Amino acid sequence: MAKTNPGRFFEDYTVGETIDHAVPRTVSGGERALYHALYPARHALYSSDAFAQSCGLPASPLDDLAAFHVVFGKTVPDISLNALANLGYAEGRWLRPVYPGDTLRSSSEVIGLKQNSNGKSGVVWVRTKGENQRGETVMDYVRWVMVRKREAGSAAPEAIIPDLKPVLDVSDLVVPEGLDFTGYDFTLAGEPHRWGDYEVGETIDHVDGVTVEEAEHMMATRLWQNTAKVHFDATLREDGNRLIYGGHVISMARALSFNGLANAQMIVGLNGGAHANPCYSGDTIRAWTEVLDKAETGAPGVGALRLRLVATKGGEPFTLKGEDGKYLPHVMLDLDYWALMPM
Amino acid sequence: MAKTNPGRFFEDYTVGETIDHAVPRTVSGGERALYHALYPARHALYSSDAFAQSCGLPASPLDDLAAFHVVFGKTVPDISLNALANLGYAEGRWLRPVYPGDTLRSSSEVIGLKQNSNGKSGVVWVRTKGENQRGETVMDYVRWVMVRKREAGSAAPEAIIPDLKPVLDVSDLVVPEGLDFTGYDFTLAGEPHRWGDYEVGETIDHVDGVTVEEAEHMMATRLWQNTAKVHFDATLREDGNRLIYGGHVISMARALSFNGLANAQMIVGLNGGAHANPCYSGDTIRAWTEVLDKAETGAPGVGALRLRLVATKGGEPFTLKGEDGKYLPHVMLDLDYWALMPM
Amino acid sequence: MAKTNPGRFFEDYTVGETIDHAVPRTVSGGERALYHALYPARHALYSSDAFAQSCGLPASPLDDLAAFHVVFGKTVPDISLNALANLGYAEGRWLRPVYPGDTLRSSSEVIGLKQNSNGKSGVVWVRTKGENQRGETVMDYVRWVMVRKREAGSAAPEAIIPDLKPVLDVSDLVVPEGLDFTGYDFTLAGEPHRWGDYEVGETIDHVDGVTVEEAEHMMATRLWQNTAKVHFDATLREDGNRLIYGGHVISMARALSFNGLANAQMIVGLNGGAHANPCYSGDTIRAWTEVLDKAETGAPGVGALRLRLVATKGGEPFTLKGEDGKYLPHVMLDLDYWALMPM
Repeated sequence: MAKTNPGRFFEDYTVGETIDHAVPRTVSGGERALYHALYPARHALYSSDAFAQSCGLPASPLDDLAAFHVVFGKTVPDISLNALANLGYAEGRWLRPVYPGDTLRSSSEVIGLKQNSNGKSGVVWVRTKGENQRGETVMDYVRWVMVRKREAGSAAPEAIIPDLKPVLDVSDLVVPEGLDFTGYDFTLAGEPHRWGDYEVGETIDHVDGVTVEEAEHMMATRLWQNTAKVHFDATLREDGNRLIYGGHVISMARALSFNGLANAQMIVGLNGGAHANPCYSGDTIRAWTEVLDKAETGAPGVGALRLRLVATKGGEPFTLKGEDGKYLPHVMLDLDYWALMPM
Repeated sequence: MAKTNPGRFFEDYTVGETIDHAVPRTVSGGERALYHALYPARHALYSSDAFAQSCGLPASPLDDLAAFHVVFGKTVPDISLNALANLGYAEGRWLRPVYPGDTLRSSSEVIGLKQNSNGKSGVVWVRTKGENQRGETVMDYVRWVMVRKREAGSAAPEAIIPDLKPVLDVSDLVVPEGLDFTGYDFTLAGEPHRWGDYEVGETIDHVDGVTVEEAEHMMATRLWQNTAKVHFDATLREDGNRLIYGGHVISMARALSFNGLANAQMIVGLNGGAHANPCYSGDTIRAWTEVLDKAETGAPGVGALRLRLVATKGGEPFTLKGEDGKYLPHVMLDLDYWALMPM
Repeated sequence: MAKTNPGRFFEDYTVGETIDHAVPRTVSGGERALYHALYPARHALYSSDAFAQSCGLPASPLDDLAAFHVVFGKTVPDISLNALANLGYAEGRWLRPVYPGDTLRSSSEVIGLKQNSNGKSGVVWVRTKGENQRGETVMDYVRWVMVRKREAGSAAPEAIIPDLKPVLDVSDLVVPEGLDFTGYDFTLAGEPHRWGDYEVGETIDHVDGVTVEEAEHMMATRLWQNTAKVHFDATLREDGNRLIYGGHVISMARALSFNGLANAQMIVGLNGGAHANPCYSGDTIRAWTEVLDKAETGAPGVGALRLRLVATKGGEPFTLKGEDGKYLPHVMLDLDYWALMPM
């Protein structure tokens, strides 16, 4: 017993400390192929070395969300093993593409703590950083989770709530070195719509649906070495359901959004996200997008779109919250991100 | 809505036009490993670099059917998104092995059109070509599909029906450069039977069966970036069944045929094929083969066998059609192909 | 019929003969990624090139059990196609890590035969060897199986029962060339416990559980090109269950044992193993370990632990056999192995 990891409780965090997460990971063409087998991912820049090279990159990178999942997965044993809820994301930035052969590791700085009024749990804010084998940061993001206390009666720490940007400014975004969309091949990419064709407020129903299976979400979640028990052990809940990793829904919705956003090639910013309702095996995931903002990046031919990506299981597209301000039961994900698109 | 791909309708095709399909794909050892995880594939030339090198190739290629699936998958958004039926294949040739690191793209020339007498749909013939990153054609084949018309009343195009060979002649087949079976290792390949041991008219029951699962066929179909909704969305049909991609059945049957045809190493020609009845999760796929023809290729030690490969779900082996000339309900696939075998 | 492999019967084995198994296999990053997708494998040395290099290896090898499965899978068509039971393992040694790009082949020497008293079957002992493309042995092990006789009345061979070590001595173990744990990074590995922290007799409940699915165990079993029908064909048994390959349970249990044994990095010896009860889809696999012995290896910073790894489906941890000396129904695997751990 003593040798297994019980996870951290709310009392175990101190603002300012840095936690180095275990199990670094080298990625290869294997992770790429599995990503394409698990999600209907078709963005050309992540599918073809030749296409990526025509956009100024040395090769086709690992999908941005795959990089996120690898970095995120390492944090689970230290941050969310005793989490009661994953509350939010902010200030997420992709800083450098990840290529086959790269080795990723993660660390998190505790940047905020606030005990809940019930005295039984508290909110922990961390800024997580993923680094490659050269010590270069490939991405960072803030996440906050509600974590159980070890003892309900223990003393509360001083409440420190970090000051987080509700939305990243375009000047916060990092365009990968060398990226150049001036010679972009719209035919090979799959759709003719460019940055100028999208308007703020526009909504897109991505039309397709995928009914998810236990074997798939478990393979995906394991691939990222995310070990949270609820995803794997059908005996944990009375209803026998395994809770699907929220990141699985993110990747599925993003892949579905190809149909209408084939040229929103690279994700560079994560402004926020809510896992509104749980996803279970047998649910059919659909997605719709709303264009929230547009900006130029200064890189050659590269524009940025701020997009709200919503994943649902049934229900009308473009419906999100009820009159009470709460997410409707069919909404599983509400994600706010910045993507790069040819101008 | 306007930004998603509605697919082409019968009226949208013109004989002579070439359609460049989107989303080129770089393949790696990941696709190879997944092919072996998804199908009981054991042909030694596609399993071992050392074996392939002993046969004169630079390395072990991607399975010929994997190459076919990649090339085929790209055509779906342009050719068969609104297809009512996949009617047939002809004149399929594998012209050059595909190796890890290669990037494939596809294009199709419309070579025939014929409106159906009901005025609601028509048949479209295309010759599809897969090319690698050096612009070399790796395979080409003809496929014809029945496609819905956008408007039932629209004018019919002039009927043009291409003149297709019912069977490729051995002189049409391309033996990969350098292929030499004179030093072939039958022990490592798994069976002693060589070209001379097979007789025209001989039938082989491949004995083994595989019960298929939703997670597997969806992973396979996504890996080839085939996005036809019927394979993924369980809400589309009243019975809740997802229709399994016909290519999944082809690959399963071919892999099962190892048991009795372990030395039918490379597929070089596709004479024709019919997806006789649909396949669903829970079906147990079996396979049998009939030797249709034999020929010498002129390459050192390399013979060719023309084989009929039939995939079934139950039923007696070697039964194919009823008295009415229609495929029996347990027959899922009737494929006619040329394979290379040591003499 | 004549061309498919009927498998060998008891009469077909002769003590002293060597059987070269078919279908050599080149492994890549694809097999690595799939191993991580199929099992919750997190041992850092098999996850990160950089970590492996910090331990003196050239790169991160393929998981030791993946290497075992590849070597084992090739033996199935020759050894266990007509097996009634897989009776045991002994004297298994991992002699050299397997790296992406290596090509493995297997051969088995028949080292023992004993007809059963019922005259219908017999026990066959083989020593199987896996070799890489340079002819270096990467592992060897003894396995014995009960095999059906072709004819009940045929003559019995002279009974020869090999003299097998019940446990490998530490001097039998081979530490990979260059392995050095003196600079071992316990933080990156995931746990602080080193060799000195484990005591003989200590038991560890690995806490986590995984509910297994048909699609997963079939993908795993196919990946190792293990073709035993019972794993794939749901029509073979009256209850419609597919029997899960025992190696799937071994890999799952070993991966679960990370939680408490994160530093038991490399498997170097297999003393014995029993597949106590079958595993079916829907079972939730758990694992516990007992420390059986400890030894120093002489390599820098490298200790060895002899571990009993038990996989269960429910039931109390640390329970194994009933009063009748038989395995309790919830016990699926009882494995005895040597692992290397930093001192």
